[in-house]
Amino acid sequence: MRPSNRTPAQSRPVTITRQFTAHAEGSVLVEFGDTKVLCTASFEEGVPRFLKGQGQGWVTAEYGMLPRSTHSRMQREAARGKQSGRTQEIQRLIGRSLRAAVDMKLLGENTIVIDCDVIQADGGTRTAAITGACVALVDALNWARGKGILKTNPLKFLIAAVSVGIYKGEPICDLEYIEDSAAETDMNVVMTETGKIIEIQGTAEGEPFSHEELLSLLELAKHGIREIVDIQKASLS
Amino acid sequence: MRPSNRTPAQSRPVTITRQFTAHAEGSVLVEFGDTKVLCTASFEEGVPRFLKGQGQGWVTAEYGMLPRSTHSRMQREAARGKQSGRTQEIQRLIGRSLRAAVDMKLLGENTIVIDCDVIQADGGTRTAAITGACVALVDALNWARGKGILKTNPLKFLIAAVSVGIYKGEPICDLEYIEDSAAETDMNVVMTETGKIIEIQGTAEGEPFSHEELLSLLELAKHGIREIVDIQKASLS
Amino acid sequence: MRPSNRTPAQSRPVTITRQFTAHAEGSVLVEFGDTKVLCTASFEEGVPRFLKGQGQGWVTAEYGMLPRSTHSRMQREAARGKQSGRTQEIQRLIGRSLRAAVDMKLLGENTIVIDCDVIQADGGTRTAAITGACVALVDALNWARGKGILKTNPLKFLIAAVSVGIYKGEPICDLEYIEDSAAETDMNVVMTETGKIIEIQGTAEGEPFSHEELLSLLELAKHGIREIVDIQKASLS
Amino acid sequence: MRPSNRTPAQSRPVTITRQFTAHAEGSVLVEFGDTKVLCTASFEEGVPRFLKGQGQGWVTAEYGMLPRSTHSRMQREAARGKQSGRTQEIQRLIGRSLRAAVDMKLLGENTIVIDCDVIQADGGTRTAAITGACVALVDALNWARGKGILKTNPLKFLIAAVSVGIYKGEPICDLEYIEDSAAETDMNVVMTETGKIIEIQGTAEGEPFSHEELLSLLELAKHGIREIVDIQKASLS
Amino acid sequence: MRPSNRTPAQSRPVTITRQFTAHAEGSVLVEFGDTKVLCTASFEEGVPRFLKGQGQGWVTAEYGMLPRSTHSRMQREAARGKQSGRTQEIQRLIGRSLRAAVDMKLLGENTIVIDCDVIQADGGTRTAAITGACVALVDALNWARGKGILKTNPLKFLIAAVSVGIYKGEPICDLEYIEDSAAETDMNVVMTETGKIIEIQGTAEGEPFSHEELLSLLELAKHGIREIVDIQKASLS
Amino acid sequence: MRPSNRTPAQSRPVTITRQFTAHAEGSVLVEFGDTKVLCTASFEEGVPRFLKGQGQGWVTAEYGMLPRSTHSRMQREAARGKQSGRTQEIQRLIGRSLRAAVDMKLLGENTIVIDCDVIQADGGTRTAAITGACVALVDALNWARGKGILKTNPLKFLIAAVSVGIYKGEPICDLEYIEDSAAETDMNVVMTETGKIIEIQGTAEGEPFSHEELLSLLELAKHGIREIVDIQKASLS
Repeated sequence: MRPSNRTPAQSRPVTITRQFTAHAEGSVLVEFGDTKVLCTASFEEGVPRFLKGQGQGWVTAEYGMLPRSTHSRMQREAARGKQSGRTQEIQRLIGRSLRAAVDMKLLGENTIVIDCDVIQADGGTRTAAITGACVALVDALNWARGKGILKTNPLKFLIAAVSVGIYKGEPICDLEYIEDSAAETDMNVVMTETGKIIEIQGTAEGEPFSHEELLSLLELAKHGIREIVDIQKASLS
Repeated sequence: MRPSNRTPAQSRPVTITRQFTAHAEGSVLVEFGDTKVLCTASFEEGVPRFLKGQGQGWVTAEYGMLPRSTHSRMQREAARGKQSGRTQEIQRLIGRSLRAAVDMKLLGENTIVIDCDVIQADGGTRTAAITGACVALVDALNWARGKGILKTNPLKFLIAAVSVGIYKGEPICDLEYIEDSAAETDMNVVMTETGKIIEIQGTAEGEPFSHEELLSLLELAKHGIREIVDIQKASLS
Repeated sequence: MRPSNRTPAQSRPVTITRQFTAHAEGSVLVEFGDTKVLCTASFEEGVPRFLKGQGQGWVTAEYGMLPRSTHSRMQREAARGKQSGRTQEIQRLIGRSLRAAVDMKLLGENTIVIDCDVIQADGGTRTAAITGACVALVDALNWARGKGILKTNPLKFLIAAVSVGIYKGEPICDLEYIEDSAAETDMNVVMTETGKIIEIQGTAEGEPFSHEELLSLLELAKHGIREIVDIQKASLS
Repeated sequence: MRPSNRTPAQSRPVTITRQFTAHAEGSVLVEFGDTKVLCTASFEEGVPRFLKGQGQGWVTAEYGMLPRSTHSRMQREAARGKQSGRTQEIQRLIGRSLRAAVDMKLLGENTIVIDCDVIQADGGTRTAAITGACVALVDALNWARGKGILKTNPLKFLIAAVSVGIYKGEPICDLEYIEDSAAETDMNVVMTETGKIIEIQGTAEGEPFSHEELLSLLELAKHGIREIVDIQKASLS
Repeated sequence: MRPSNRTPAQSRPVTITRQFTAHAEGSVLVEFGDTKVLCTASFEEGVPRFLKGQGQGWVTAEYGMLPRSTHSRMQREAARGKQSGRTQEIQRLIGRSLRAAVDMKLLGENTIVIDCDVIQADGGTRTAAITGACVALVDALNWARGKGILKTNPLKFLIAAVSVGIYKGEPICDLEYIEDSAAETDMNVVMTETGKIIEIQGTAEGEPFSHEELLSLLELAKHGIREIVDIQKASLS
Repeated sequence: MRPSNRTPAQSRPVTITRQFTAHAEGSVLVEFGDTKVLCTASFEEGVPRFLKGQGQGWVTAEYGMLPRSTHSRMQREAARGKQSGRTQEIQRLIGRSLRAAVDMKLLGENTIVIDCDVIQADGGTRTAAITGACVALVDALNWARGKGILKTNPLKFLIAAVSVGIYKGEPICDLEYIEDSAAETDMNVVMTETGKIIEIQGTAEGEPFSHEELLSLLELAKHGIREIVDIQKASLS
């Protein structure tokens, strides 16, 4: 039995609030249960130096947690003077995932900077961030098309993500913090709206896991992501 | 005429939402018009090294802006590897102001860490932060009294803050961004609920100002803060 | 056809040289073809602060590349003043993987620090590092048993790793640099000596990949790791 | 009674030594009693990037304390790897104050960098720094006029600064260290030579202060600054 | 008697292995007994900004120790976020010494970056590094001549280095770690192949030393370097 | 002919002003001609961690240049966030030299921190710093004896330093900036009051130098230091 009484395959309620803040071209508050992440997409002309003159764009992401988004206060990374390895790992994952969803030639020499800031954490912040960031990205691309900066839509497909894991011996979907911290295996999966895989990262936190367990987890992820994509689509329509 | 059609003495609508996030002992979203700041107060046992064994507590504050809280995206301080001079100046002001409101002996060897994170910026983020942080502080102190950690209430008085300035030659209260960036003089005032002064910081951005102008600004600030304190009290009751 | 004329399932020659340097308790030069990584395991008494007094040990890892291990010179991270996100991601992966192989209770309050330094890079440095580090770890544990510091062997199983990917549409094993930089999909797999999964990290560099492709890649990885484990065992006997 | 037997309104002896060092275009040792600050003004062609091509100049300031300018040795900021919040706050104040004294259009695309280094500290280092820096600035502007780089004098007026505060319940002027560390209220005031206000920063270190106390402090500051400006003028003539 | 039974004037066996790694234009493993340093020379077109347009080249060096090149593990400088004073001192010495061996006009606007990474340390790493780096430099220059980038050979002469010191009252040559850590005086000498002095750095670790002792040490160094140059020449022929 | 019309062996006028600032236990302004360095010695109880409980003391040094001590303004190291390699090299030299002059057992578990800050630079700042720091050290030791903290004087001998070099083909003593920047060879020598060598650092900036040139330079240094020691003694008596 899961602490929240959810069935193994059941995700938490997912809410997507667009235009959550005023300035960003895309601004989304995404909630996976009690996990709340503010995702903004900033459309900027120009590309980083290593891409100049190649006629293509760039998508990059940064991630942060407000110091008291967690149960006990975390040190502020800006005060500490550097981002943790975990932060860097997550923002690299978010950026890589979103780049897979964009046709860089169609984006032209423009950059979209995604910022994912965790307002409240209860497990699954990186998968919520990817899910919300994709919607913010769509809004920013539409903004640019509305402004006439982009002629065609560079979006190849929606992407969404969910965490799955083995908790008390059973594969479950969308782990909340209490499950996550006790899980034997933890896997984050990013998929396209048609169920193809963008990224899969599975870790044996406790015991190594078997091929069969991997397949069960994948199945749960595929199902969970399908539902989340539906919510993305509903929010965008 | 002010861009928002406010009268010179008129503050923007001030909203205070308590328990905005789940984990912090005090968590307040404060809004001064379109300026939105999340203020959390974390109650931690123990004090910094320089206070150990002196039987008194400590209150400190950190401040940050989400990268896209502003019109164009700001570099993330955590990625840049250090906090700007402006950030440090503001968080020192917030901490100093709140320390004035707390009896450190009654707090005992406990620390309250205030985090003020700007979700959306439209001028006056530091005065909004102080105003919201004070309410978060009250909630954290009450939490500690509820837990029996504190016997007596260490709060000496409520404090609140507002910005005033000279805009197009006329003293006005609670400047929004468009006013702030064009103001000749800019002054931030922090006062107690009874109108005594905690902090006053006035700067001639353009022309130096006269003694009389200073008095007019102070008058506006006193009036504005009185109204804001009423909103704090209403939200706390 | 692969650039090196290998068959899709064929790994590069793997060589493991123990006692490569004199001072470390475990010191291994591991070669996957032209990729050469020096892995040392340092046995240190005591544990990091967060583990003190819990009667268990710790394994951690750091990773680096010599500036001219690569085709064109990379900036030295020590001179630049920080480790890149890629470096942190890799060293977190190495540490996490090796921790899965050790019974922390049996290790007692001791720490093993793994250093993986790439002498020459030709793709697959992280999988080579994990493979070599495991052998260095075994040597360090045996050293501690020889000294009487450890009574029982804390090693739960050998682990090894290999990269797999989709190159020109076909799944292949143990990508060298030229393949890696052109691969559509790239996956790193860490397994135990009995073929259970410790870590799986798959990324669509180009097009998203299908469930079937994932299965093919896993199959290749399982086969490749089995061979690499045999080489580890031979080197240890 | 003040520790130094001064009357409440009495500043310490102020000494200004021009051409204290050889290389800077303006170089002033300013002494407020035992507080000694070396202020240099460096005239540099060109402006920071954000001002390029706008036909105007820039004035900026940096502040530091020699490690043993204080009673007990302070850590060297260069060794520590960053400037403290206090340092940044002070150098921002100095730069802002001096910018108010210069017509940036007349300065043309040139930059004046002010360095204020405290040789010996006994309270009031920031007000002494502003006072001395203004004289160094004048020397640097005159140097540039002598060289024909500037046609007209960009100086709008002299500025000077003094600290005032409430010590043992009484408002006093130009606090030395022993007074400063015990003051209930501390205020730094920067004024023009004609008594208009450039900056006012008042802080309740102990109890909040009243409107009347603020007025008394301002009166003391105005009187003190008038005397200090006379000393600046004498030194420049 | 020396711990290794060497005579006072006897250096350790010196081995020079060229083309130790594949990518660098010059790549040398140099061994002075158990001290092993990998020296690579990277030939890069262009020069640092301060030399642009002057028609001359640049040679610079960086130095590092693998964390477990030493008896007990040293903190990784990249993780610590800065290079130690010792590291900087050594890499400045290496760069300065090699610049003395190159005619910068003949090098043209090209840069050679030397990387010296200590694989295993047993005293004398900086002198071994200079000795090996010189051979790597020659290889990189020859590579550039083979490519037609350089018309004439910019090498003025070979350089080599050795440490000498006073150990148990007697001057000895090429100190190993155990001697180095007990030496009263320690001196590093860099000479040309004809015995002229490039750099001499002598330090009284214990007692100050006399003029006569300095002369004895110089004599030992001259003799030791002559032998080492012969080994450089043999390895290059 | 030297720019200053000095004879080759002639040092610049050396002035030593004790008690230059008020707070430090030893505070000396040393002048070698136009080079002016403020040297303070701070006596602190306790020793760094690596020496705790060994019954001996420590002497360490830090060095800095005020940004406008030089012809054109240098970046402030505190603002830049790190000390340059040159700074670290110099402060290591100063610390090492002064440690040679102190009996660490007699110092007991106390630390003397030397700060050398260059007020005005005209060549030879490091040798001036060592010379002045030695006098400041003596004052700090005498202070501690006066306080009864030290029973016996831990000073073994005075030390002093001078730079020598080959300028336009001729060996000269105590190079000023214009000579230093054109010298073929540059050597810094630190000696005891009886002419024994503490440190010798010679560098061929242009052509390598011969054994005979080295001897001439040493002779000049010995003579110059003898004179400087006389000035130290006069200032201390």
